[in-house]
Amino acid sequence: MPHLIVEYSANLAPFPERKTLVELNEAVCASPEVQTEADLKTRFISQNSFAVGTESSPRGFVHAQLRLLAGRTPDAKADLAERVAAVLRRRTPQPEGMLVQLSVEIVDMDRPSYVKERL
Amino acid sequence: MPHLIVEYSANLAPFPERKTLVELNEAVCASPEVQTEADLKTRFISQNSFAVGTESSPRGFVHAQLRLLAGRTPDAKADLAERVAAVLRRRTPQPEGMLVQLSVEIVDMDRPSYVKERL
Amino acid sequence: MPHLIVEYSANLAPFPERKTLVELNEAVCASPEVQTEADLKTRFISQNSFAVGTESSPRGFVHAQLRLLAGRTPDAKADLAERVAAVLRRRTPQPEGMLVQLSVEIVDMDRPSYVKERL
Repeated sequence: MPHLIVEYSANLAPFPERKTLVELNEAVCASPEVQTEADLKTRFISQNSFAVGTESSPRGFVHAQLRLLAGRTPDAKADLAERVAAVLRRRTPQPEGMLVQLSVEIVDMDRPSYVKERL
Repeated sequence: MPHLIVEYSANLAPFPERKTLVELNEAVCASPEVQTEADLKTRFISQNSFAVGTESSPRGFVHAQLRLLAGRTPDAKADLAERVAAVLRRRTPQPEGMLVQLSVEIVDMDRPSYVKERL
Repeated sequence: MPHLIVEYSANLAPFPERKTLVELNEAVCASPEVQTEADLKTRFISQNSFAVGTESSPRGFVHAQLRLLAGRTPDAKADLAERVAAVLRRRTPQPEGMLVQLSVEIVDMDRPSYVKERL
């Protein structure tokens, strides 16, 4: 059931999305928290209209949100966030002179109301 | 106040977005939880850059997120999720040989800090 | 660490995104809750495929989501939401004859699992 949504500021293009998608899914699916590899749905979104802070020096960001059914331990969540961060740390372009920020967020999804099925 | 965000993997195109938007809004606004039909704001997003799991067989997904002010009962939330699922189950394309996953998530929004107005 | 995501229905175009980004970041970074201005990452998303409610009269919306590490007081959250709303209230186009809705939502992000670094 996990959903992984990765956004990045368009000034980091070209972002190696395809390679990163493969590595993110391998890293997250290798966690004991993910029982069925096909459950992980990852998407990349390039954000064209953005601003980081209030100063005009060159800045970019990559942010990942991993949405999981509630109930994981704090340790399991921290481990999952680090799996995502490790891949993004390696794959995110770092244009010269640009401050690039990386962040990863874990979101608990409401379990009782969650619907999931194969069509 | 509900916000409904539907994402689908672009390999499900052509997705009948217009028809589905109409049916989703009718289904959700018919719930006793929605008091003013104009409050429901639904959007469709086609995701072009995605990966499902780690295997290379054809896979697609449709995922809906319904964001509501906190305070609904578990039964009300499950009912709303099922209203959304019922429409997507019927309208989501199912290309031959592709594993298509459907999921619906209910999100509680923080009520005291929520701002809502008509301009 | 705050993330600010502003979506608007495409029938509000042309939306003055650049000016609004600058003003949003000034307004939010002026809050005592934001310690480092560079931490605020704001993006604009125009939604092309949308429906508001079930009636066919002209309707549009702008919705902002401000994601912060958990732990702010209710007053601090309400103040932040109002800072965002004040800018959007002023900058959102209001086409004649269209019902335009504005909403602002504050989201608590899980603090222990949050990853944040500069690359």
